[in-house]
Amino acid sequence: MDNKLMLMIPGPTPVPEAALLALAKHPIGHRTSEFSNIMAEVLENLKWLHQTQNDVLMLNVSGTGAVEAGIINFLSPGDRVLVGSNGKFGERWVEIATAYGLNVEAVTAEWGQPLDTAVFAEKLQGDTHKEIKAVIITHSETSTGVLNDLETINGLVKEHGQALIMVDAVTSLGAFNLPIDSWGLDVVASGSQKGYMIPPGLGFVAVSPKAWEAYKTATLPKYYLDLGKYRKSAAKNTTPFTPPVNLIVALHTALQMMKDEGLESIFGRHQRLKNATRAAMRGLNLPLFSADDCASPAITAVAPLGIEAEKIRSLMKKRFDIALAGGQDHLKNKIFRIGHLGFVSDRDILSCIAALEVTLTELGYENFTPGAGVAAAAGYV
Amino acid sequence: MDNKLMLMIPGPTPVPEAALLALAKHPIGHRTSEFSNIMAEVLENLKWLHQTQNDVLMLNVSGTGAVEAGIINFLSPGDRVLVGSNGKFGERWVEIATAYGLNVEAVTAEWGQPLDTAVFAEKLQGDTHKEIKAVIITHSETSTGVLNDLETINGLVKEHGQALIMVDAVTSLGAFNLPIDSWGLDVVASGSQKGYMIPPGLGFVAVSPKAWEAYKTATLPKYYLDLGKYRKSAAKNTTPFTPPVNLIVALHTALQMMKDEGLESIFGRHQRLKNATRAAMRGLNLPLFSADDCASPAITAVAPLGIEAEKIRSLMKKRFDIALAGGQDHLKNKIFRIGHLGFVSDRDILSCIAALEVTLTELGYENFTPGAGVAAAAGYV
Repeated sequence: MDNKLMLMIPGPTPVPEAALLALAKHPIGHRTSEFSNIMAEVLENLKWLHQTQNDVLMLNVSGTGAVEAGIINFLSPGDRVLVGSNGKFGERWVEIATAYGLNVEAVTAEWGQPLDTAVFAEKLQGDTHKEIKAVIITHSETSTGVLNDLETINGLVKEHGQALIMVDAVTSLGAFNLPIDSWGLDVVASGSQKGYMIPPGLGFVAVSPKAWEAYKTATLPKYYLDLGKYRKSAAKNTTPFTPPVNLIVALHTALQMMKDEGLESIFGRHQRLKNATRAAMRGLNLPLFSADDCASPAITAVAPLGIEAEKIRSLMKKRFDIALAGGQDHLKNKIFRIGHLGFVSDRDILSCIAALEVTLTELGYENFTPGAGVAAAAGYV
Repeated sequence: MDNKLMLMIPGPTPVPEAALLALAKHPIGHRTSEFSNIMAEVLENLKWLHQTQNDVLMLNVSGTGAVEAGIINFLSPGDRVLVGSNGKFGERWVEIATAYGLNVEAVTAEWGQPLDTAVFAEKLQGDTHKEIKAVIITHSETSTGVLNDLETINGLVKEHGQALIMVDAVTSLGAFNLPIDSWGLDVVASGSQKGYMIPPGLGFVAVSPKAWEAYKTATLPKYYLDLGKYRKSAAKNTTPFTPPVNLIVALHTALQMMKDEGLESIFGRHQRLKNATRAAMRGLNLPLFSADDCASPAITAVAPLGIEAEKIRSLMKKRFDIALAGGQDHLKNKIFRIGHLGFVSDRDILSCIAALEVTLTELGYENFTPGAGVAAAAGYV
């Protein structure tokens, strides 16, 4: 049966019907009070979602564009930065920092492993001249399903006292408790096609007062990504450049749905889905690519033994119209990734696991008792 | 009567129902053959629309982001550039070039007047050391309804031989004949919410082989706006970063509609709408803000005498749910602007003029014979 696609990838994530219908409304002029009223509510609800009183700015960019804006607005050429790199996205932030002529020190870990907080402790504590201007961390590393220990690293940054903490929260925002104000996070970037439950096209950057202080003297060139312009416009419930009106109207709907569900319920649901997925993979004797204590709430990477990951993906799509994600770069065909981010229900994860059981059997994988995956998941949903 | 909005602003422009319904389709994964097949057709049709065999790249940005990408990918700090500036957007490109440390020479004209081609001739012919690296021109200046004489200026750039010609075609692409290959335009930037008939959120940049040569040695920093990455991905019918999937699906539909209409018909329709609008304003004794020989095919600016432009806009919205654009910056309340760009029919322009007649009468403006606007327009539609 066709035309019944189920997205279980880390983005785009499933979009509720109400958000799709909002998206399809004819655009209105963006320099109108009608649009500004929508902007006002969206900006307020974004602060709620981000658990912050800081500015949360919206840009017409992908998640990468949001992270880039979050880096370049607060730094100058030659500034020393520590960049965590334990997956495709960490590597990307190293590339961005390098492209802009920053003095980049990559703190690496193997893909699938979390960043080692001890290395950050050593570097930050050893920086007696306070040369480190920023620490850039991927919270949930989408390529591997690893959740880095942001809370500990942030604590070290706070002890350092000078450096800004900049967070790629693209697949953690709206999935995991990330209390920006109580943790004192300076820059938090994310993207619409993830926990926000709308299609791709909008990036978000939350900016602390401390980061705005750094903005005043930062000299990296920028214009379209100049967050100062977005801040000035947001104060008047507008945007410096033509915004993606339809996506913002859809976001307005999605944020209201999120408020109705409540932050604790949303985080609890992602936790449940993660636990159910991991239990199911254990029940099916499929090795998990990340350890329990650093498992992303958004995505679970699985490294099947004796069976090609791409064959599983391909048959899941063909038989059940379920889209799973593959491995990136050197992990291609070594892992597959199950997205359980955003508008994903308990029922969805059970469907996915049940379908995976049938798929594995059809591929000749016999290292599990039929039903064991669903049975294991059942204890968590 | 509410909920029957008619957009007669220069963007967002009206969106066909088929494109709105395409927009509302659930997103699919962007790393799939299904999406690549759509990308392939979109990229091919973009070349058709741009009348070029050059790369036409798609970015998840507004028109401003597309122009910025078009400038910064091909230049290095200190490069001398001539920037035409006779309106809000020309001024913006001066700001961008300045923000990136280029050696900017603004060639200005009063708002409402076209750029003086003689000044470009003098500067380009006087540049015997070939220091000018680029000439940046706004084709249709949205803020004033002036169409600059790109063909003549481009001819001067070609005589110069070294400089690149970079064009803001945001409100001319898809409205006016802009044969990129036969004119030899190097960089042409535009945005989705204009002639493309879809909502805002996508920017486009067409790039010539000569510009790609300059790219190789250009050193301005970039990553998200790095067109080389988009080119490499486009060759494989994909994108370097998560694309706004729904907008691209809507674009796929809109481009097919444009192909069905045909380029000559589209340009002819915009010419008709422009002529009808201008004739109507004359019939109503409302002064046009730009001269006939430099009138934009996308937008007509009107400078009413003895009556506030904002009052006309406000009553047109209230009585007829027609959105007109106001004047920007110092032209606020001095002019109003009628957009006739994209998915706008002969009927639409007649509706707008008829409603304007009633509005003017209700505001006490009596300097016209009732029906004169529509009668004048009738000779052109």
